[in-house]
Amino acid sequence: MGGPEVERLAALLAKLPGLGPRSARRAVLHLLKQRDTLLTPLATALEETAAAVSTCTVCGNLDTTEPCGICRDPQRDRSQICVVEEVGDLWALERAGVFGGLYHVLGGTLSALDGVGPEDLRIADLVTRASDETVKEVILATNATVDGQTTAHYVTDRLQGAGVKVSRLALGVPVGGELDYLDEGTLGAALKARREL
Amino acid sequence: MGGPEVERLAALLAKLPGLGPRSARRAVLHLLKQRDTLLTPLATALEETAAAVSTCTVCGNLDTTEPCGICRDPQRDRSQICVVEEVGDLWALERAGVFGGLYHVLGGTLSALDGVGPEDLRIADLVTRASDETVKEVILATNATVDGQTTAHYVTDRLQGAGVKVSRLALGVPVGGELDYLDEGTLGAALKARREL
Repeated sequence: MGGPEVERLAALLAKLPGLGPRSARRAVLHLLKQRDTLLTPLATALEETAAAVSTCTVCGNLDTTEPCGICRDPQRDRSQICVVEEVGDLWALERAGVFGGLYHVLGGTLSALDGVGPEDLRIADLVTRASDETVKEVILATNATVDGQTTAHYVTDRLQGAGVKVSRLALGVPVGGELDYLDEGTLGAALKARREL
Repeated sequence: MGGPEVERLAALLAKLPGLGPRSARRAVLHLLKQRDTLLTPLATALEETAAAVSTCTVCGNLDTTEPCGICRDPQRDRSQICVVEEVGDLWALERAGVFGGLYHVLGGTLSALDGVGPEDLRIADLVTRASDETVKEVILATNATVDGQTTAHYVTDRLQGAGVKVSRLALGVPVGGELDYLDEGTLGAALKARREL
């Protein structure tokens, strides 16, 4: 219904996490009802975001500057690097405001099932960064899932000889849970109680 | 996080039905991860939809032609007009494939609370259409909510003297439910068992 443009728009919206085919159609109608206040601004915002935002070549964060705002911030503690799976996890930690060091985004986890090997993640870059003498500690903040823990173990092995302390978020993170869904209290407690590997 | 462009995009996405502030941020990351396959096509699809789709001046449907595909279709039964609240309800009936006549979209319901009066809905247009001698029956398919039923009663009164039979979807529609969420069987049964007012 509504012609091929509507069908295509609904199909694209249905690919967003949280929207299915039916809610995507509702979203299209919602957008068409609010052309000037929602549809057009959304199209513009998408284009501006695509043009402005890029991946930080140092840590893998997404930001409008290169390197990103965190990597450029002189106030951040450059002796600590917190390793996360995805940019969403980095943002979750920043929202919680519990960490003052730098980050490193792996871009996923090792997964035999999905064919993701070490060369598909930013692990070599991490080893290079960790080998710099200013870095004293690497904090592994991968998810408390099987893949996240497997990845943390692998990264720990790779960091042997880099001359850094390697620690891991305390298991205050609920087993099977994902960082992006946790509250500040849990994130903060888990960071404080991190244990050396 | 991610700069003002990301914040603005997340704020706009959060206005879509089905997405909240947190899922909107997840959607932004999802879009940035799939720039070429999702973000850019979505921006294009939004613009093309805005440019191509308009409201049918006859029935209020949204389509790429004027009048809409249903109003132009010579196969449709021009003696019946089905009155719905919103375009989403029209599309739900079309997906069910249970009605072969024409439609009329009111654009909402009467609501004292929200300050929606008869002049805010396409009721006068409906009376004009119903007064045409080709039209034999007006089927009221507003939602089975208090506002929907109030509106159906008001429309029934306004159609007195237009020389048409006025009927209403049978109460196979669950009380308090909305058309867009119903299966074809329920919609079809309700249409068949419609009763004359």
